[in-house]
Amino acid sequence: MVIGIYGLGRFGSFWASTLSKVADVQAYSRSSEAPEGVRAVTEEEICKSDILFLCNSISSVEEVCKRISPKLKRGAIVADTCSVKVYPIQVMRDNLPDYVHILGTHPMFGPDSGRYGVQNLPIAVCAERIGQRELDRILDLFTGLELRIEQLTAEDHDHEAAYSQGITHFIGRTLNLLHLKPSRISTTGYEDLLDIIQQTCNDRWQLFLDLQKYNPYTEEMRKKLHSSIEEMLVKLDSIDSIGDN
Amino acid sequence: MVIGIYGLGRFGSFWASTLSKVADVQAYSRSSEAPEGVRAVTEEEICKSDILFLCNSISSVEEVCKRISPKLKRGAIVADTCSVKVYPIQVMRDNLPDYVHILGTHPMFGPDSGRYGVQNLPIAVCAERIGQRELDRILDLFTGLELRIEQLTAEDHDHEAAYSQGITHFIGRTLNLLHLKPSRISTTGYEDLLDIIQQTCNDRWQLFLDLQKYNPYTEEMRKKLHSSIEEMLVKLDSIDSIGDN
Repeated sequence: MVIGIYGLGRFGSFWASTLSKVADVQAYSRSSEAPEGVRAVTEEEICKSDILFLCNSISSVEEVCKRISPKLKRGAIVADTCSVKVYPIQVMRDNLPDYVHILGTHPMFGPDSGRYGVQNLPIAVCAERIGQRELDRILDLFTGLELRIEQLTAEDHDHEAAYSQGITHFIGRTLNLLHLKPSRISTTGYEDLLDIIQQTCNDRWQLFLDLQKYNPYTEEMRKKLHSSIEEMLVKLDSIDSIGDN
Repeated sequence: MVIGIYGLGRFGSFWASTLSKVADVQAYSRSSEAPEGVRAVTEEEICKSDILFLCNSISSVEEVCKRISPKLKRGAIVADTCSVKVYPIQVMRDNLPDYVHILGTHPMFGPDSGRYGVQNLPIAVCAERIGQRELDRILDLFTGLELRIEQLTAEDHDHEAAYSQGITHFIGRTLNLLHLKPSRISTTGYEDLLDIIQQTCNDRWQLFLDLQKYNPYTEEMRKKLHSSIEEMLVKLDSIDSIGDN
């Protein structure tokens, strides 16, 4: 069983490297070198993988699906790894042949949160168009990495992710505009806040944009956050200032 | 040397209990019971302490100073513990007799962050109207608790605190309005965010208000944060939505 990784960006390289500890992994990238323990192959060859993980950006999923579609192996499993699920699964359904299995996955970690290992970290799995036997192969693979598997629908994933990962990235990116600095009198809460800024801003700007634009629930989340902030500002402004209360 | 604690709210009780491990501590409160190891005394008696920590809310510092002023012991050290420093130090200067020493302190922790001990946690110290010998007594006391002492001016403290503790509390309280929930697919960044909400909202609402209203730099901080959020929202709205980029 050969596992293929399509795309060796920040996450793709990390995922290839992680999987290579428990499986035979080959990878394709137009520009990046394969990490240690991973075989670099051509685009033709990567399409012949038994399990193919798409590790390109959300915005390029459609283009990639169109490119690989005619070259895929019958009975292969194609799994995206995007941070949203409704959109890429629909794109895979629309563009990949009926004779391949389709699975949505979202590893809820990356090179930062997984730097000390991925044990017990969650991976979301949306079993959309896949046989039970094929699904079990994937689940066994994730179990081998000691991941915590969370099966849910793409809709549920996107709603929950908007109000967890989505809001965290929005806060991190927004605070980053303020150029906050470490402080000698920081509270532990502030140190947690600096960690959030650093972690979210370590990811590519494109990932942030994709998280905000391709998840059908993030616009609503941002609107609610905006209202909460305005509510809080009004509340504070309505209170008498120093010495008057 | 007797240490007095004026006010046994959430922080006062914690501070009395913490100090009682290394010193003789008595406390006064109109309504709360003294924690174990701390002697409950009258308002008259608490004013006779050698070192008196004011642990009441920022908004009541002036009233308390006026009450205790005529009863204080000559040569005593009066130290506030407010989360802002410019304002309470000015109030103490204006209201306490010349024959007592005045010190501003801000323990950068509380019952939550200090629940496993206060070792290595920072305490801000603003030596405003105090003799070197008296200052050394206080620093020795804090060293005995293994605190990390950070001496700075009240102005520097308030500016730095607005952009660290102040912004953290503002974010925590604002996010709390959204009723975010733990998620089975949470990233570590989101878990940090939930911790921040919980920690900041465990403190009294009055402390939050005081942090925002009595620090001369928090209004500017809130305005900058507001602008950053609007900037980010505009940036996201200007990008074409799903499938167009």
